[in-house]
Amino acid sequence: MDEDVLGVDVGGTAIKTWWHGGAGPTVPTPKGDPTGERTADLLAGLAAGFPGVAAIGVATPGIVDDEAGVTRMSVNLGWQEVPVRDLLESRTGVPVALTHDVRAGAVAERLTGAGAGRPGALVFAPVGTGLALAVVDADARPIGTGWAGEVGQLRFGPGPHRGLRVEEVASAGGLALRYGAPEAAPVLAAMQAGDAVAAERWRETVDALAEVLAWTIALIAPGTVAVGGGLARAGDALLDPLRAALAERLAGFPEPVVVPAAHGTAAAAIGAAHLADVRRRSR
Amino acid sequence: MDEDVLGVDVGGTAIKTWWHGGAGPTVPTPKGDPTGERTADLLAGLAAGFPGVAAIGVATPGIVDDEAGVTRMSVNLGWQEVPVRDLLESRTGVPVALTHDVRAGAVAERLTGAGAGRPGALVFAPVGTGLALAVVDADARPIGTGWAGEVGQLRFGPGPHRGLRVEEVASAGGLALRYGAPEAAPVLAAMQAGDAVAAERWRETVDALAEVLAWTIALIAPGTVAVGGGLARAGDALLDPLRAALAERLAGFPEPVVVPAAHGTAAAAIGAAHLADVRRRSR
Repeated sequence: MDEDVLGVDVGGTAIKTWWHGGAGPTVPTPKGDPTGERTADLLAGLAAGFPGVAAIGVATPGIVDDEAGVTRMSVNLGWQEVPVRDLLESRTGVPVALTHDVRAGAVAERLTGAGAGRPGALVFAPVGTGLALAVVDADARPIGTGWAGEVGQLRFGPGPHRGLRVEEVASAGGLALRYGAPEAAPVLAAMQAGDAVAAERWRETVDALAEVLAWTIALIAPGTVAVGGGLARAGDALLDPLRAALAERLAGFPEPVVVPAAHGTAAAAIGAAHLADVRRRSR
Repeated sequence: MDEDVLGVDVGGTAIKTWWHGGAGPTVPTPKGDPTGERTADLLAGLAAGFPGVAAIGVATPGIVDDEAGVTRMSVNLGWQEVPVRDLLESRTGVPVALTHDVRAGAVAERLTGAGAGRPGALVFAPVGTGLALAVVDADARPIGTGWAGEVGQLRFGPGPHRGLRVEEVASAGGLALRYGAPEAAPVLAAMQAGDAVAAERWRETVDALAEVLAWTIALIAPGTVAVGGGLARAGDALLDPLRAALAERLAGFPEPVVVPAAHGTAAAAIGAAHLADVRRRSR
């Protein structure tokens, strides 16, 4: 990747930047900006602070139409149909790439993170407040757009969780809520202290994640599954039972390596920078 | 698509061809051909019968490495690591594209079948003796290679079917076997005559198919799901409850249209011809 591309991750509370292979400034996200104009002004100002920016990659949460360069809907940002690419290209004069923050994270994990040096496609599973997945092919091209990867919004079919949204079980936020804790870490601590209810909730979360990932692996046959987000901080307490549950489901299938994501909260800004580079070269 | 590309679908018992927009000859598949050399000889002979063949597309069952042009493993053909592309290019001197028969079918359904004129990606679900899926993007490019789409080989997790392979429930062959019939049609007839056991087996099959498809839709966000294979001959007796089960799972999601596949058993040969055209243009 060339060094003169700026990566930007527009989150609900903060905007993170990536420049010249390292983290740039983090600034608060403008509040009450339904048109996205103020956010675009801010991003243009940030870009002006980096000498020689040749392209900008932007990642946002929500439903993002990568081809059109439009964030169709984002609850976190209060956006509907915000044409991020046009707003920012008109202000800066440089090519802008827009994508979903999880897809951007997958690109980063594929190229320079958990997937670096491994063959094949990569699935990025940030298990946090909610759950969305992203898939990139062996060349780090994102697969799907719009609603693609919003598996957390799916509802469980017949079984113990019937009717629940998937992320109500298969996320750190869902785990905490079902146990009655403010976040997932105390549930892990309680389980490790011998609390049987915590252990049961933990097992349900791991099983639900294995369910999501098993179908994804069977459809895509990736080489790597990179698990990130808050729940990944549990390390082997999450990954060991997850790998065991996957092995049961995937018997006979070539199993991907299931590893922690490498880029942490910088993943989306890093991946956005990569995609900006791709977009610039294609023009 | 140009007219001078030959599509070939190499099945376990017959080889089907597609030429100039219509079905060409069907010939028996050579038996006992572990190296694939005799099949390649036969295909080269078939190609010589079509004046001016500029490229050949070949679809096979099994685990197919599209990029390498190698059928890694096919139980139906008795093949392991057969370099189909090289075998046929060396005999014919024209560019050869190799892909999986279900991926080829998805290409055909996207371009000229159930997906024609509809936006977005397409999922092709031929529900026959077994079950595999294929996904193509809005431009009819297949997503994934190798084991990708072999969802029928996955094993169910916790629930009534735990440990069963998915296609033991979610296929025409699985339905027949579980009911104790030689094929799926008598199960449908029994259900329509009021047989409660047949109705229960049918419902289980539909639910399992909905399970497979719901996860696939959440991951890919396709515009179209084309259902083919033997079970699709049941028409609305399959599609109506399938759509209802999907609607329950996808509440809030943009739902794709779920329609019968259009190309029947010609799909793989048609799609192979399309891919041959793409390969020729890329050289």
